Amino acid sequence: MNKQIVLNERPISYPTLSCFKEVLSPLPEISAGQILAQTIYVSLDPYIRGRMNDAPSYAPPMKLGEVINGGGISKIIESKNPKYKAGDLIFSFCGWQQYSVLESSDIMIALDPRLGPPIGALGILGMPGFTAYLGVTDIGKPKAGETMVVSAAAGAVGNIAGQIGKLKGCRTVGIASGLDKCKKLKELGFDECVDRSLPQFAESLRAACPKGIDFYFENSGGKIFETVFPLLNIKSRVALCGMSSAYNTNQLSDRPDVTSLMLAGMLTRRILIQGFMTLDHSDRFAEFNSVVAPWFLQGKLKSWDSVTLGLENAPQVFIDQMNGKSMGKVIIQVQPL
Amino acid sequence: MNKQIVLNERPISYPTLSCFKEVLSPLPEISAGQILAQTIYVSLDPYIRGRMNDAPSYAPPMKLGEVINGGGISKIIESKNPKYKAGDLIFSFCGWQQYSVLESSDIMIALDPRLGPPIGALGILGMPGFTAYLGVTDIGKPKAGETMVVSAAAGAVGNIAGQIGKLKGCRTVGIASGLDKCKKLKELGFDECVDRSLPQFAESLRAACPKGIDFYFENSGGKIFETVFPLLNIKSRVALCGMSSAYNTNQLSDRPDVTSLMLAGMLTRRILIQGFMTLDHSDRFAEFNSVVAPWFLQGKLKSWDSVTLGLENAPQVFIDQMNGKSMGKVIIQVQPL
Repeated sequence: MNKQIVLNERPISYPTLSCFKEVLSPLPEISAGQILAQTIYVSLDPYIRGRMNDAPSYAPPMKLGEVINGGGISKIIESKNPKYKAGDLIFSFCGWQQYSVLESSDIMIALDPRLGPPIGALGILGMPGFTAYLGVTDIGKPKAGETMVVSAAAGAVGNIAGQIGKLKGCRTVGIASGLDKCKKLKELGFDECVDRSLPQFAESLRAACPKGIDFYFENSGGKIFETVFPLLNIKSRVALCGMSSAYNTNQLSDRPDVTSLMLAGMLTRRILIQGFMTLDHSDRFAEFNSVVAPWFLQGKLKSWDSVTLGLENAPQVFIDQMNGKSMGKVIIQVQPL
Repeated sequence: MNKQIVLNERPISYPTLSCFKEVLSPLPEISAGQILAQTIYVSLDPYIRGRMNDAPSYAPPMKLGEVINGGGISKIIESKNPKYKAGDLIFSFCGWQQYSVLESSDIMIALDPRLGPPIGALGILGMPGFTAYLGVTDIGKPKAGETMVVSAAAGAVGNIAGQIGKLKGCRTVGIASGLDKCKKLKELGFDECVDRSLPQFAESLRAACPKGIDFYFENSGGKIFETVFPLLNIKSRVALCGMSSAYNTNQLSDRPDVTSLMLAGMLTRRILIQGFMTLDHSDRFAEFNSVVAPWFLQGKLKSWDSVTLGLENAPQVFIDQMNGKSMGKVIIQVQPL
């Protein structure tokens, strides 16, 4: 049997356990060209929250009853596809289930054993690392000595973005909630970490950026964006990667609209803000690997994975993640490697 | 005597005649290294409105009693500077006065007679043309077949930006107020012009952009920005050049804040918004001239100048400009050429 976690009801704001349902399905037979794979790790990502809404976005929403989407590492246990053989490890969008059936048209990336443990393909050498790399390389383009700020710095993308900025010679300042996250970020090489959960957040951020901010790697939006914005220097860049403050709300703010003030500030200070997604740049994954994998293998970049055992724990771990309680790359281990 | 128009009081919202005062000063004596120049044309520009506020911006505010700032074309009538001689025509920031004294440290650009009538140095071959060129070239980077929208398209910068976009192969849509402006923009080669003063503005803009908007040259902000934003395509670019909607107000909107929605839209659609100013790119003025002057001299780009005679008319013409009543490059002719 195949244990699966499906979308039971759509969340209104923060997801709850009733949004998810565990179901058992018979293990499917595979036909010519297909592969049966056993999930080892499944990746829990903030973007999944958007797919739980019944609203069009850059990807179609999940349907009720559909297996929760997500990337993962699987081991092929049966192959009727000449390109793959049993025992191979692959990355695919397997979803929150024990087994998946894939065919040639699905995204399947065979893992390169020279790149260290397979779990890296979900974090530092996978989509989060690629996202961090693109935002820093293409949008931030930071010069040595510049100040880079990263919000949700203890998240899967944020911690890598800050580490890459540090390798480029930036003064790197993380924004995160709580002492534990800040402690770990300083171990990873961030120069400063500002705790956004404290009442003196704005003052602390200003003190941590005495020369203003040249590059802001934005994963949060909302009040954090507003706190950062006045500190942005002339000719600063904002890589707009995530909006964690907006994922769990559909409410408008009750404050007056400041869009015009923001645009006026962008004009006066010649600020660049750019949204980006890895899906536009899949042709550059090899370039990313050729730059970032050596840094990782030489110990210049460190991975930060938080692994929880058991597929049945995925809903609660995802709820914690949405509530800012998780750290690093959030992964569920479904089966032993 | 030297007739000057000085800042008499700071405007609260739209400027009024009482903000300005005409004064007569004795013609100054010049000393070694200096030049006495007679103003021929003075340029009236929206950015001057910002300098009338007592607030720091990218340039210091004007002082009460100071001659109103502005670029212009002057003829040198006396020179104690070996680099310049009487009779030469120059561009400088002469301000709203009949005569100005300049020295080597002031910006002075000798006009090149091969580039057509000197008035061009205030418009198509001057700061407005350079601004349009930078926004299109550096930020918009439009490809043939893309849709470009320009707000305040009947303004000095907007009409040139649209014409350059058209030369790059874009479908070019102007936004302007009133039939006269729209008529002229279509004569200049715009494919469509949408009248923002009509109640069906949003519907008309949507109809004029059936494939959405790939590049938005923004001179307005406010409601026009809000109307354009939903039509911006995936990977579209916004060159943030001006905010005419905000120059004459210091009021916040009374609508709820949509900053987060805007950032979320920028992320989902991978939109780039970038503020820019010519002052960061003065090293590229020669490049601009080498590209745009031939277009102008070959008749591929057309100038659009609105000239009013008499320095005493400058305050009313500027008030009209702030109220959206002027067209093209707004110029006061102070003396005959």
